[in-house]
Amino acid sequence: MVAKLTVAAREKALAGLTDWTFDEAKDAISRQFSFENFSEAFAFMTRVALLAEKAGHHPEWSNVYDTVSIILNTHDAGGLSQKDIEMAGKVDALLG
Amino acid sequence: MVAKLTVAAREKALAGLTDWTFDEAKDAISRQFSFENFSEAFAFMTRVALLAEKAGHHPEWSNVYDTVSIILNTHDAGGLSQKDIEMAGKVDALLG
Repeated sequence: MVAKLTVAAREKALAGLTDWTFDEAKDAISRQFSFENFSEAFAFMTRVALLAEKAGHHPEWSNVYDTVSIILNTHDAGGLSQKDIEMAGKVDALLG
Repeated sequence: MVAKLTVAAREKALAGLTDWTFDEAKDAISRQFSFENFSEAFAFMTRVALLAEKAGHHPEWSNVYDTVSIILNTHDAGGLSQKDIEMAGKVDALLG
């Protein structure tokens, strides 16, 4: 079982994820991604799905045409954990 | 450009889509789907993505692990159109 990050650990981790927004109420991080069209957006979603399945850590996410919104937190930890930080980093890395 | 359905046409169409819920405020229909796990849910999403791209008509949708929620309406028509009814039928048909 993974632990929820301490405030200090969270602040340190988020300093490296400048494109993600921390939602204190949900204890989650989110980011919105825009693409050229649906095909590009869904291609990205497919890559995120493979990352998520490999990590055993799945996002709460939505899509409308060329936009994808991803929310990450760790249900078992009751908030943000190292798993979310790692997943956010991997998602960012997809965009090169 | 596709037209928004009249109330009579909408009621007739929705009578054939018993698993979908009509939201009057959004003039949209929605349905939630549950699967065994994320892999099954994303496989379904991939099939819906192919349908959507082929039809040139894309859903507003979200996923959390084994659950997929789909909302259909037609932005250009300002509400529910025949395109949404057809897409809902095709999505239902994926489930056999």
